[in-house]
Amino acid sequence: MGVVVNLDSGKREATIKPLIDLTKADMGRVNELILSKAGSDVEMIPEVANHLISSGGKRLRPMITLAAATMFGYEGDGHVKLATSVEFMHTATLLHDDVVDESDLRRGKKTARMIWGNQASVLVGDFLLGQAFRMMVEVGSLEALDILSSAAAIIAEGEVMQLAAANNLETTEDEHFAVIKAKTAALFSAAAEVGPVIANATRADRAALRSYGINLGLAFQLIDDALDYGGSSADMGKNVGDDFREGKITLPVILSYRRGTLDEREFWKSAIEQGANDDAALERAISIMTRHGAVADTISRARHFGEIARDALAPLPNTPQKSALIDVIDFCIRRIN
Amino acid sequence: MGVVVNLDSGKREATIKPLIDLTKADMGRVNELILSKAGSDVEMIPEVANHLISSGGKRLRPMITLAAATMFGYEGDGHVKLATSVEFMHTATLLHDDVVDESDLRRGKKTARMIWGNQASVLVGDFLLGQAFRMMVEVGSLEALDILSSAAAIIAEGEVMQLAAANNLETTEDEHFAVIKAKTAALFSAAAEVGPVIANATRADRAALRSYGINLGLAFQLIDDALDYGGSSADMGKNVGDDFREGKITLPVILSYRRGTLDEREFWKSAIEQGANDDAALERAISIMTRHGAVADTISRARHFGEIARDALAPLPNTPQKSALIDVIDFCIRRIN
Repeated sequence: MGVVVNLDSGKREATIKPLIDLTKADMGRVNELILSKAGSDVEMIPEVANHLISSGGKRLRPMITLAAATMFGYEGDGHVKLATSVEFMHTATLLHDDVVDESDLRRGKKTARMIWGNQASVLVGDFLLGQAFRMMVEVGSLEALDILSSAAAIIAEGEVMQLAAANNLETTEDEHFAVIKAKTAALFSAAAEVGPVIANATRADRAALRSYGINLGLAFQLIDDALDYGGSSADMGKNVGDDFREGKITLPVILSYRRGTLDEREFWKSAIEQGANDDAALERAISIMTRHGAVADTISRARHFGEIARDALAPLPNTPQKSALIDVIDFCIRRIN
Repeated sequence: MGVVVNLDSGKREATIKPLIDLTKADMGRVNELILSKAGSDVEMIPEVANHLISSGGKRLRPMITLAAATMFGYEGDGHVKLATSVEFMHTATLLHDDVVDESDLRRGKKTARMIWGNQASVLVGDFLLGQAFRMMVEVGSLEALDILSSAAAIIAEGEVMQLAAANNLETTEDEHFAVIKAKTAALFSAAAEVGPVIANATRADRAALRSYGINLGLAFQLIDDALDYGGSSADMGKNVGDDFREGKITLPVILSYRRGTLDEREFWKSAIEQGANDDAALERAISIMTRHGAVADTISRARHFGEIARDALAPLPNTPQKSALIDVIDFCIRRIN
């Protein structure tokens, strides 16, 4: 599986450290709030919720919310609640995604649906979404509520869009960008924008963080798609070829199909549309991708959005938060996990 | 299937008419808003949503919201948005419920999950929930948002509670009431309470409508449970015995099990816990229920909550809305559908 992915792996973990350090105290409060708001007398709820919550995600989204609030001088505690809401929205999405994708593993662990069933995953996801909205309401900012509730609808819309395009190799690159913009980038965007909103920053500041979030999210998802055809299971917490075996339409597949010979297109049809996706097929898929530079170009598309995210923050005064958020872009593009 | 259920069927449809008449103009606007907010460029969304929306539910919950607002002199248009939000929350719950219960039919029609799959049902439910929150945010009442977002979390909590108690014949009546209070009554309560809230009515008025809603919801669910063991498929839009075949723990089962002989308890274990639930078993179940008066007593429990709902409204001035809401109690208890 020798796809050449230039990930500059030496710098990878270092680049997110400034954000972790900056948000350390607030993230302690977020983590406490996560545990308390995932609690319920109905035992199955904290069991299922904590399975996901404790599964080693980096909590990038809530850290972005915290930094995006304090960089504009926010001093209240609403950012902690909003950050927790953002993480709950993300967790709810993961629970529902695993049901929709029929996934067995996430970050190397059995998915909740494999342990407690699809039913519990759907309902605990609904519970976490409800708790997320309750926390947002407690903060009392109608603007933040507007941003986050809109994101919730857009994310679901993006997931349906993806479902409708499932297995469709004729999906264009633009159509694919519309999907990932909605299903992934919308939450990054909302997570970033609510910071300046509760800090009463200017409209320009809001727009800057929104743009940072959406472009960071696009880069993040494209790298995720690229990693599925490179990297190793231990590093990334999912198995190489998961997307392939699920017949998912991702950018490496879209580019390979469009650039492919007639023979290769037949191969993609049998693999993605008809499910002929065993290990030999995966090996051939990766070899075709390498020939067409599909993974490398997916990464270069990600860099493009990363650059836009960087420029979105450029006009802002130099603060430790700004610098940490810019480092996150590099982290996302270089990340293995 | 000769259970004797005294439903006073002569008055049944008449009792909801005052509420329909009173809310007719506003419901026209609710119905328009439902269509527009269930819309999306992603075709599958309106398809799935409209399948449920057009399936002939009575839209009792939004009518309650509308009447509960105008009875306190509300003159804005926020009640139309809140009523639509309430209906969307209900529709989202139905979509997810059908997935969780693996139901094939709802109100005599194929469920969305049978036509578009579980995946679409989960995601379109999420979309409608997101749209519901967006509309609530537009109304701008943090108190109404608090009530409805809390209801969303409580409903999901109730569903998980029900899932955890699934097939457990040792469930007590109190535990069962806790489940239906959360999964059904919480939304009726929220639907009723947001009326006085946006009308800036007194705390006492809010409490009255909240109490009306919760007790009406309990009565409503108990009658639903009773109907599953009496009535006919055409009348009620579901098949007699649906709950039985799904091994659902409902009050008629709980009472029959607790009052039963050792032999009968063995029967319930094989039927509910081990799934021996063919037509002969259903016939025996209904005959055991009849002997123990389990369906009749479920209805009498419903009447009890109906009385509390009625008394909750007693102190309020006599208005057409009050009278229509009281009629709804009788309708719910007498309803076939």
